[in-house]
Amino acid sequence: MKNFKLRLPVFLWLLMAGLVMRAQQANPLREVSVASPDGDVRLVFKVDSQGVPTYSLSYKQKPVIKTSRLGLELKGAPGLMDGFSLAAADTSTFDETWTPVWGEESKIRNHYNELLVTLDQEAQKRQLKIRFRVFDDGMGLRYEFPLSRNLNYFVIKEEHTQFAMTGNHTAFWIPGDYDNQEYDYTESRLSEIRGLMQKALTYNSSQTPYSETGVQTALQMKTDDGLYINLHEAALKDYSCMHLNLDDKNFVFESWLTPDAQGNKGYMQAPCVSPWRTVIVSDDAREILASRMTLNLNEPCAYDDVSWIKPVKYVGVWWEMITGKSSWAYTSSLPSVKLGETDYSQTKPNGYHAANTEHVKRYIDFAAANGFDQVLVEGWNEGWEDWFGRSKDYVFDFLTPYPDFDLKGLNEYAHAKGVRLMMHHETSSSVRNYERHMDDAYRLMKKYGYNAVKSGYVGNIIPRGEHHYGQWMVDHYLYAVKKAAKYKIMVNAHEAVRPTGLCRTYPNLIGNESARGTEYEAFNGNKPFHTTVLPFTRLVGGPMDYTPGIFDIKLDFLGNRPHKQVNTTLCKQLALYVTLYSPLQMAADLIENYEKHMDAFQFIKDVAVDWDKSLYLEAEPGDFLTIARKEKGTSRWFVGGITDENARTAEFRLDFLDPSKKYVATLYADGKDADYQNNPTDYRIKKGIVTAKTKLSVRLARSGGFALSLVEATPENSKGVKKF
Amino acid sequence: MKNFKLRLPVFLWLLMAGLVMRAQQANPLREVSVASPDGDVRLVFKVDSQGVPTYSLSYKQKPVIKTSRLGLELKGAPGLMDGFSLAAADTSTFDETWTPVWGEESKIRNHYNELLVTLDQEAQKRQLKIRFRVFDDGMGLRYEFPLSRNLNYFVIKEEHTQFAMTGNHTAFWIPGDYDNQEYDYTESRLSEIRGLMQKALTYNSSQTPYSETGVQTALQMKTDDGLYINLHEAALKDYSCMHLNLDDKNFVFESWLTPDAQGNKGYMQAPCVSPWRTVIVSDDAREILASRMTLNLNEPCAYDDVSWIKPVKYVGVWWEMITGKSSWAYTSSLPSVKLGETDYSQTKPNGYHAANTEHVKRYIDFAAANGFDQVLVEGWNEGWEDWFGRSKDYVFDFLTPYPDFDLKGLNEYAHAKGVRLMMHHETSSSVRNYERHMDDAYRLMKKYGYNAVKSGYVGNIIPRGEHHYGQWMVDHYLYAVKKAAKYKIMVNAHEAVRPTGLCRTYPNLIGNESARGTEYEAFNGNKPFHTTVLPFTRLVGGPMDYTPGIFDIKLDFLGNRPHKQVNTTLCKQLALYVTLYSPLQMAADLIENYEKHMDAFQFIKDVAVDWDKSLYLEAEPGDFLTIARKEKGTSRWFVGGITDENARTAEFRLDFLDPSKKYVATLYADGKDADYQNNPTDYRIKKGIVTAKTKLSVRLARSGGFALSLVEATPENSKGVKKF
Repeated sequence: MKNFKLRLPVFLWLLMAGLVMRAQQANPLREVSVASPDGDVRLVFKVDSQGVPTYSLSYKQKPVIKTSRLGLELKGAPGLMDGFSLAAADTSTFDETWTPVWGEESKIRNHYNELLVTLDQEAQKRQLKIRFRVFDDGMGLRYEFPLSRNLNYFVIKEEHTQFAMTGNHTAFWIPGDYDNQEYDYTESRLSEIRGLMQKALTYNSSQTPYSETGVQTALQMKTDDGLYINLHEAALKDYSCMHLNLDDKNFVFESWLTPDAQGNKGYMQAPCVSPWRTVIVSDDAREILASRMTLNLNEPCAYDDVSWIKPVKYVGVWWEMITGKSSWAYTSSLPSVKLGETDYSQTKPNGYHAANTEHVKRYIDFAAANGFDQVLVEGWNEGWEDWFGRSKDYVFDFLTPYPDFDLKGLNEYAHAKGVRLMMHHETSSSVRNYERHMDDAYRLMKKYGYNAVKSGYVGNIIPRGEHHYGQWMVDHYLYAVKKAAKYKIMVNAHEAVRPTGLCRTYPNLIGNESARGTEYEAFNGNKPFHTTVLPFTRLVGGPMDYTPGIFDIKLDFLGNRPHKQVNTTLCKQLALYVTLYSPLQMAADLIENYEKHMDAFQFIKDVAVDWDKSLYLEAEPGDFLTIARKEKGTSRWFVGGITDENARTAEFRLDFLDPSKKYVATLYADGKDADYQNNPTDYRIKKGIVTAKTKLSVRLARSGGFALSLVEATPENSKGVKKF
Repeated sequence: MKNFKLRLPVFLWLLMAGLVMRAQQANPLREVSVASPDGDVRLVFKVDSQGVPTYSLSYKQKPVIKTSRLGLELKGAPGLMDGFSLAAADTSTFDETWTPVWGEESKIRNHYNELLVTLDQEAQKRQLKIRFRVFDDGMGLRYEFPLSRNLNYFVIKEEHTQFAMTGNHTAFWIPGDYDNQEYDYTESRLSEIRGLMQKALTYNSSQTPYSETGVQTALQMKTDDGLYINLHEAALKDYSCMHLNLDDKNFVFESWLTPDAQGNKGYMQAPCVSPWRTVIVSDDAREILASRMTLNLNEPCAYDDVSWIKPVKYVGVWWEMITGKSSWAYTSSLPSVKLGETDYSQTKPNGYHAANTEHVKRYIDFAAANGFDQVLVEGWNEGWEDWFGRSKDYVFDFLTPYPDFDLKGLNEYAHAKGVRLMMHHETSSSVRNYERHMDDAYRLMKKYGYNAVKSGYVGNIIPRGEHHYGQWMVDHYLYAVKKAAKYKIMVNAHEAVRPTGLCRTYPNLIGNESARGTEYEAFNGNKPFHTTVLPFTRLVGGPMDYTPGIFDIKLDFLGNRPHKQVNTTLCKQLALYVTLYSPLQMAADLIENYEKHMDAFQFIKDVAVDWDKSLYLEAEPGDFLTIARKEKGTSRWFVGGITDENARTAEFRLDFLDPSKKYVATLYADGKDADYQNNPTDYRIKKGIVTAKTKLSVRLARSGGFALSLVEATPENSKGVKKF
């Protein structure tokens, strides 16, 4: 059937047009401004002589963003770029404190002054609104598209939101890419990005860079006059992911959206809004880490019942495959698998398939003995023999275990010991196939008692031509999370679009990868400064499943095979449990590697995964971090400190402790001779009594770190313990 | 996670390579042939001097297909085009008779001689096989791709199967198009196609023509020496739909597959096969209609239980929207709908929404009173206000009725009267959205007692860039059918890819549109010869939901609005129930239009929808048809005859009747003054006693027709009835 009748509701369009006209006649405004509650951050909005909307931002009187244009180019329709007049400017104030389901703090204050500008585009008889929220630590702006006759369904050709920098700042960047964000960070001047781009574009299984000066958000910068500026977005929904393209003559960043298979950048239906474009700013790097602006710009929790959402500490069958010791695949005798046709019971096991019942039981035992919540098992299901790089549609069914994996028995075994298995859904980016199987896959999980899934999107997206960060996939990732919530399942999606604070609204999104994680330590290694950058970039949008805790730094367990090493000391691995916030923390190494260092492993056993309070004691992006956190609902504190390729001494006071109490401190620190390259596993453990008055000074080796636990002293735990 | 280990099963590849070599050394063949069981059809296969596989076909010694090349071009890999040697040629014979769940006949014979050629491509160390099946009525060939090291996963750039015609034949064609097949047929010489293409490309809501000499299959041709040749495909699965591109200098057709969003034409995993490429040939046009080759080239029924699959005769709330009398949409006050947000109870009904409870009840009453199985209701669910042309993802949920449609009450009302409602799922081609809702939508159907769904794919496909006839969508249509089978639901998909006999394997696919149906009689009209062509083209692959039965030929019910007319007489509308085979037949007109002609309507009430036997008494594509069919399981026969824009006299014997019996014949024929333009509703009904010896001569008006029912005479029904 192909024909249909259009009866336009004319009266309605006339009504809308009338409203536009009235507002326009009433208001001759050209410029308005709004400041943060503390007055430090100031936003000026102005419509220029061509009717182009612009804004600028300052912090403590210093310019942060110079006058920058706003607007969008549409496909097959006049743009929302110019010809605007300022019809109305409404300001308001908001202040509330809310309680996250999990987080770095148990209470978060959301306090801002808002400016909503209404713009008339008279020639097109339509309006555009731009909403600014100015916080003490920065600013968010978003476009709002009111429904009108000339703005109903529209396609975005490109968004042209500019961020004009005031100079040639230092930036911590990764290449802009529609499909990959697992790059090492580069620290450089803005003017150097172009020259360093090729080197920064290391190989990945799916990657689509788009410009010699394109970078990804969150982008952390530092100015010569001591400002820390962070550009990102918040609440990415129903829109494609924003990258930034740099005009490196003028140091102006401009939004660059991820296209779809046809090159279009967004399909919109008014009334609707864009995600927030965010600028976090401070003259103290620690305040960037303390900012909750990204979360605050997201909607409150969408679920009534969140009792089923719990932080998770886990071990798993994973690192041994990543390092090449064992395999996801069950057999090596299948060049090609057809699910449902291939009979694995007729194939020869390769003998190094890790997800086998006996091996998994060992992990369950270990988890139970050491207080872990879950055991991740990758490679449990049929299809791994040809899962990658084939553009294969029906690549996994997420239901059928390999012959050597006793799905029912292992879950029962785990549950009897108070442990759960963690599900793994690698999709191979065959997204239609995953959606087709999703309900059955989630049902299988519930049947056997899984409550968390690690999902993966390795390789090029199917439907072919779509990108990992386009609107199509942005929609999919959230679809998976919302559907999981119906089954009370938590999601930890790898290779998905980088987070933008959506975990406030959908707190069962307990983790993402979306950056270069520990796995790369087994491939080419991560730069020593990597984890000092992540909290300023990737983590601004939400927690990362970084999977730290590698103790066998030199990968000696692999025997004589050629391999690299993990570019940290052992103690830095411990520190990451505190410095890289996540409600989902893995102890990623093999059991046998932990068993050689059970004294150090004690810290991983002890460290919390949910917090009442977080304090950023020392911080400099690319250099070092010292963070203290108080466990949710207890009086225990944990402190972690890390450094880059340079050794340093962390110095900090324990003045955050209850001054009326004493604490037993246990310090895990790099040994005297520790060095990430020459002696990474040299560590010392020191126990002593401390108070709020204690000042600590801890030496960190090159790419080293320390971890500190602080437990209220009791007669039992302090017996024989001396002053620190 | 991005890295993984490749351990190639080398021994396996070596084994395969060895097999290839041995076969090659053993066989110096260059040419082989195989003939049909009756010897009339002869296929010659030959590898030419460049190693190109070729074939030719003859019928009763006359060339049908001149030497034509075979092969495929691959993307990023050496082609399967040349460099072949003939390693093996295996012949076999097959003869079985099978029972379709529904059909034109209750028993179908599948009898062919087969030739399987194995081709070595030595330079690539791989093989290609081509399987030919030669029937008395034609030939099917397909490619088979054995798994080997150099042929595992591959991407088709283009298939190059040629069909070299012997001359400038007359063809009945519609433009090749990746998205639309609802074109009027053009009858022309092959050499005229290019010149007529633009005129043939009438507007449609989604259309992507690709060549000035591109046409679609099934393509019916007629040669100057009296051969009827039909080109099509069978068993289209896991592959993209084939069009034909004509080299109009040499009259050579070549396969032209439908591309995906990136221009690729197929993603394959060996071992696998292509669909069958078919040539049906005869010197009697009636034999083209009698051919069951397309069904025979499909796999047997995939379902164990088919008891729930039943032919359906139905009425529905449909023609009134098609003609513009009423609307699918509930309201005219919504410029834009957001499902789940838009509250229809707060909108003003437009007053001409057809799918309202009272109106549907009237259809249920009418269906019950006249023996119809089902009542189709379109426009029952939320979303029709902005459903079309918006590239809207979440366009329908397939679950939520409009406020004026009592889903539960109407089903109960219908069931109490022995009638079912027929579900309608218009997807607006937002296919991801449909798949996401499919289980819930089918469950809703089962809950309320629906067992059949009419689905629709109007507009451009989402995922954007994919085409209606590409591999992606071919996969989707079958996914929908197979999933429906799990719920014991029958599917009648409109705007889907044209059928290729898959209904043999999946008999719950009880109908398709996939051609220009009756709806176009309300738009621009169908050519008078249209329905004389369809059985030779569209219907070769499977039944069509043509929705005949329009009695108000001049659309007088629309009042004074400007409109066209249906380009047939009323009696031709009746004849279509016999001449256009379908197990799913609609009486498409409004109740009030039937009520004016209840005597003629009696034929629609009587006519069967499932058959023991079908006889093609007279046939000439583009000109006329006379078909007789015996109802399944009874002794009743029905005959239909139609003509094109020329009046004619049908002459035929009733020698198919049981010679030992008498029958009461009821003839519905064009009246003396009937003419489709000037007097389309002039008809006469004549009753009389006939026998197997009766010869009938029936006058058909311009674009006219006749219908005849033949019932065994009993004392009751023949009382007072004279000899015909």
